[in-house]
Amino acid sequence: MSLPGTGTARWHPAWLPPEAFRAIGTRRVLVHGAGPLVDTVFEEVTRACADHGGRARRTGATPPAGTTDSAGPPDGDGGGGPAADEVDATQVALVLRGAGALPAVAGDAPVPAGGEPGALGDEGFLLTRDGAVTVLLADAPAGLLYGLFHLVRLGETAFDPARPGAVHRPAVRRRMLDHWDNVDVHPVMGQVERGYAGGSIFWRDGRARRDLARLRAYGRLLAACGINAISVNNVNVHATEARLLTDRLGDVAEIADVLRPYGVRVHLSVTFAAPVVVGGLATADPRERRVRDWWARTTRQVYQRIPDFGGYLVKADSEGQPGPFAYGRDHADGANLLAEALAPHGGVVHWRAFVYDHRQDWRDRSTDRARAAYDHFAPLDGRFDDNVVLQVKYGPMDFQAREPVSPVIAAMPATRLAVEFQVTQEYTGQQRHVCYLGPCWSEVLGFRPWGPDGHRVADVVAGVPDRGRGGDLVAVSNVGDDPYWTGHPLAQANLYAFGRLAWDPRRDPRAVLDEWIDLTFPPTTTGDPERVRETLHALLDDSWRTYERYTAPLGVGFMVSPANRHYGPDVDGYEYSRWGTYHFADRDGVGVDRTRATGTGFAGQYPQPWSTVYESVDECPDELLLFFHHVPYGHVLRGGSTVVQHIYDTHFAGAEEVTAMRERWRDLAGLVDPALYDRVGERLDEQVRSATEWRDQINTYFFRKSGVPDAKGRRIH
Amino acid sequence: MSLPGTGTARWHPAWLPPEAFRAIGTRRVLVHGAGPLVDTVFEEVTRACADHGGRARRTGATPPAGTTDSAGPPDGDGGGGPAADEVDATQVALVLRGAGALPAVAGDAPVPAGGEPGALGDEGFLLTRDGAVTVLLADAPAGLLYGLFHLVRLGETAFDPARPGAVHRPAVRRRMLDHWDNVDVHPVMGQVERGYAGGSIFWRDGRARRDLARLRAYGRLLAACGINAISVNNVNVHATEARLLTDRLGDVAEIADVLRPYGVRVHLSVTFAAPVVVGGLATADPRERRVRDWWARTTRQVYQRIPDFGGYLVKADSEGQPGPFAYGRDHADGANLLAEALAPHGGVVHWRAFVYDHRQDWRDRSTDRARAAYDHFAPLDGRFDDNVVLQVKYGPMDFQAREPVSPVIAAMPATRLAVEFQVTQEYTGQQRHVCYLGPCWSEVLGFRPWGPDGHRVADVVAGVPDRGRGGDLVAVSNVGDDPYWTGHPLAQANLYAFGRLAWDPRRDPRAVLDEWIDLTFPPTTTGDPERVRETLHALLDDSWRTYERYTAPLGVGFMVSPANRHYGPDVDGYEYSRWGTYHFADRDGVGVDRTRATGTGFAGQYPQPWSTVYESVDECPDELLLFFHHVPYGHVLRGGSTVVQHIYDTHFAGAEEVTAMRERWRDLAGLVDPALYDRVGERLDEQVRSATEWRDQINTYFFRKSGVPDAKGRRIH
Repeated sequence: MSLPGTGTARWHPAWLPPEAFRAIGTRRVLVHGAGPLVDTVFEEVTRACADHGGRARRTGATPPAGTTDSAGPPDGDGGGGPAADEVDATQVALVLRGAGALPAVAGDAPVPAGGEPGALGDEGFLLTRDGAVTVLLADAPAGLLYGLFHLVRLGETAFDPARPGAVHRPAVRRRMLDHWDNVDVHPVMGQVERGYAGGSIFWRDGRARRDLARLRAYGRLLAACGINAISVNNVNVHATEARLLTDRLGDVAEIADVLRPYGVRVHLSVTFAAPVVVGGLATADPRERRVRDWWARTTRQVYQRIPDFGGYLVKADSEGQPGPFAYGRDHADGANLLAEALAPHGGVVHWRAFVYDHRQDWRDRSTDRARAAYDHFAPLDGRFDDNVVLQVKYGPMDFQAREPVSPVIAAMPATRLAVEFQVTQEYTGQQRHVCYLGPCWSEVLGFRPWGPDGHRVADVVAGVPDRGRGGDLVAVSNVGDDPYWTGHPLAQANLYAFGRLAWDPRRDPRAVLDEWIDLTFPPTTTGDPERVRETLHALLDDSWRTYERYTAPLGVGFMVSPANRHYGPDVDGYEYSRWGTYHFADRDGVGVDRTRATGTGFAGQYPQPWSTVYESVDECPDELLLFFHHVPYGHVLRGGSTVVQHIYDTHFAGAEEVTAMRERWRDLAGLVDPALYDRVGERLDEQVRSATEWRDQINTYFFRKSGVPDAKGRRIH
Repeated sequence: MSLPGTGTARWHPAWLPPEAFRAIGTRRVLVHGAGPLVDTVFEEVTRACADHGGRARRTGATPPAGTTDSAGPPDGDGGGGPAADEVDATQVALVLRGAGALPAVAGDAPVPAGGEPGALGDEGFLLTRDGAVTVLLADAPAGLLYGLFHLVRLGETAFDPARPGAVHRPAVRRRMLDHWDNVDVHPVMGQVERGYAGGSIFWRDGRARRDLARLRAYGRLLAACGINAISVNNVNVHATEARLLTDRLGDVAEIADVLRPYGVRVHLSVTFAAPVVVGGLATADPRERRVRDWWARTTRQVYQRIPDFGGYLVKADSEGQPGPFAYGRDHADGANLLAEALAPHGGVVHWRAFVYDHRQDWRDRSTDRARAAYDHFAPLDGRFDDNVVLQVKYGPMDFQAREPVSPVIAAMPATRLAVEFQVTQEYTGQQRHVCYLGPCWSEVLGFRPWGPDGHRVADVVAGVPDRGRGGDLVAVSNVGDDPYWTGHPLAQANLYAFGRLAWDPRRDPRAVLDEWIDLTFPPTTTGDPERVRETLHALLDDSWRTYERYTAPLGVGFMVSPANRHYGPDVDGYEYSRWGTYHFADRDGVGVDRTRATGTGFAGQYPQPWSTVYESVDECPDELLLFFHHVPYGHVLRGGSTVVQHIYDTHFAGAEEVTAMRERWRDLAGLVDPALYDRVGERLDEQVRSATEWRDQINTYFFRKSGVPDAKGRRIH
């Protein structure tokens, strides 16, 4: 076997370079179990051992009766390295429980007595020591796969005799990436909508790319950070993409075939108008029998071709996409229509809550886009079928660097929810800026909508009685056909972190970053491992807050350039537009009054205590002040500064921090791969330029409006 | 013969519907002369007579020795109508002098005694009466053609026995339209850069369209308003378009062949880098012998294929186009290189003076885009070859609705100049707004750079000793493949007016509009001719000033949306950009200080008295105040209002005027062609919407900045 991309590759190995497998690859490894995912595990182990001199052996490859896994390879062994007399001296055992009789291994039996049998579930695993053997147990093949990559992450520490045993299970059942990839090149959005890493890895110029080696490498990366589902096309579904559901289903099946061995299920974005657009019906009305029949029949055909198909993703009645409103139906009617078709096959429908008036009049201050998702969906709680997942952006607006957590998350206890993040850096520097989003997502997942003693957002998504039925974590992908996958090599950390935080939302994003650094820049491959680690932490740890400092202030959002597709500053760029994204700056003050008392009432969509906290100009957290309140420039923040001085201070600071980041990166010259070094260096040059531009435009704008000079006398143009 | 487009047409006949030929077509007409242009005249007369019952006869069709015209049809006659006994009772004689022996016609000899023989030139004509015969005399075929269309314009009044004879000659020798048409569809600019009338009539998707019938109809429209040259491709010359000069020259020749019978010569936009891009040389340095040889050889080949080829149009060292700066040469070196190649063949090079720093830093207030053309070119006066025409935009910026006249025009007495207008409404409503530009161009052409007693711009262009060597009038075309040619049917008036004002710059633009109305809506074809005329005057006469009122105030310019490609308001859209188009509005005031005393010094580029007038905040004309001065909002204009109140007043007024225009248009329901009526009505709806948007954004912007309420208490959002 061979895994392209890890040697003289067309693409960077990201967090799976061969060196990352050193600890396991130098040992004698037994893989016990059957089925394609266990085959994948065995292939990985075999390759690692071949690279590093260990020895891989396989048992139990005959599938046990009653499993759905197809037959794997026969028992055998692989890899080169140690002499035959060492073969049975197993040091690591990866064991799928119930997969036939275990062979004897050196030392004690690899199945420990107290292993919480049956508690591991579809994806969980138990890592423990049994005498001299490090043992990984799983009850299902996917668990073995995730356990393998956990061993890889742990490296040598997995073999510490003192290491206590531990069970690992994902917090949510589905950890999903949405690809906004277009099959046809869109005249405005290109091959990948909001894509900053080249073309699509799936599609090119209207056709499937069929770069199966790269797709497989992608599946491997996903599995290694815990992602188990993707959607393969843009939520804005145009004519060609609509046909992926029908006559171009083969293209989707091919992707599914390649990703299946890595435990990744494929979903499809579909248009609500599919019965009309590709089905030839005169209507897509969810109440019409022929429409329901069409979806049932079409979905059955999908499952005939892709038995483990994940389901549908739908953007309906949103930014011009068709939806149930056209027929006088509501979103529950719409979502349940598709859910009904998917249910017999175990599929789900992800129904996006991103519904708002995108033809708003800026003169109309009574309409507040922030209110829209709650106003549309909260009244529908309880009406969605069990296999509907309502997909809610983490904030009420649109993936800004700073937003309050969406009030929808606390408002729909009877509905399965997916919280949606944006790994692709649409509003956070478009992969030209270093902006590690782990801390942002961690804050959102740790937010407690019912106050300090209440559950967290992560709990709601995982499922807690009376608060949430359990759902998914979803993010828009940042991957393209760029050699570094994500354009900016350091943006790989965001992809990795999303997967890891979706598996374990309570994990410290710095610890996740540490994992990523260890894997991507293994200590044995860099000139000075500690320096590399420290430098990367110095660049990435606070980079999201740095980005926040030099862009739109105090949670007010947007101020990005429409002409440059959301890249770079344009303070009034959306101020008079139809998109509902305003800041209302005048010569006296700035911000949006979203209070119940005098504003749009959005603050009232939160449960207590937040409803009261956000309502109060004094209690509202500084970082969200201008999202909830219109205040004079002289208003004193909780932090002690006036609003306008805070704007000046943060913008000077943010730009300085970026300059320091660029300096800091230079420490790594000669310590990391030169091509990667140069790529990051070029992007940091652009980040310095752009951050300076942000600083100057924002400061000049507010100086011109307020007339208040900088207290520190710095240069404002 | 047949002229497509005048019956059941794919396109609107514009100002040449069959009815416009009634006066001449009902008469007995003699055409005397030889050559293709006289053939055209005879075809026109024949068709008119066939339509309206007159009788056309031809004599002198054998070409006289020594003329370059190729052989026309033999003597003969055409058309249907009157009986044979009327054939010789000539009522109209169109006579090319020197074209062989004239036949006897009824009445006296058609050549009058006192006709300023020899003074008519290449394009002039004499219109006179000889007894009962209306006689048109010309010394060259083009004169006969222009005379014919003059007769058409005059209609029945041409046959008034009391009409005095008159000689007509064009003010400038070349009256030219530049097509910014791309051969390949440009990814950003599309098929026609700044095109608002559909696709190109020449090119589609990388190929020549070869719609010869439409091209011929286009040539006919051009001749009928006096235009005698076009360039067939965009001044931004990309890879495919560069090859029009060489292996795709045939496409250009085909256009030239079709337009030649209407007296229209074809020019080509070329890239200065052509020797490299299509010639395979390593350099385009004008001092290199092989570069000069390449241009000489290439140009010779062009003339072999197109003997009356007009010449080259070049945008060099401008907005990314290559130019002589790359080789350390100046614009005179660059222009003369091409001039040298063209001179032996009688061709000219139009060299654009639109050179400025398009990567300016908004923080740098010492750089002023308005200064750029003068700074670049004035020092080169006297260095350009005789067949170089320096093409200068009418204002120092870029075709804004209001700019001062470019100081370059008064600064280069030893250089041939072309003044460039923009018929396509890039910054004046993009053919969705009614904006009759005749008054704007008339103002520019009538501007006296040396004060009330000095010459006008039109004189400089025509040529006056010590002031100007004489040049051309040029405009960017507004024509596309739209059925109405110009998208907005009323925008045809701009195309017509440009041609007519280029022929006679002193003509009152209202009179030009009157001509256009008479021709386009002939009295015999409308339900109520006077109402049609009055309504069209009411809509068009003041529409440019109306447009000015509701857009950027007091000459400050821009404030257009970059995201919407210069359509609609975005007050700060270019304020922090690299394009050098700023207004510097802050809470205290607005405008650009271009004085010598405290500003960029641009005012000093003008001769007296304007240098002093523009320098003075008190003497500067109101409509240019913010172009030359940064003033407080409370500054009192010469008109008596404060700046900010003027902004409010003009914006309320402008939007109201557009609403009134829409109302007024409804008067024509049932009186004009229903399809045209509807098309104009739709565009007026959009103009009302857009003007309201302009009003509200501008007023809100300045209210938010200044805090000054409207003195009249009107609603500002």
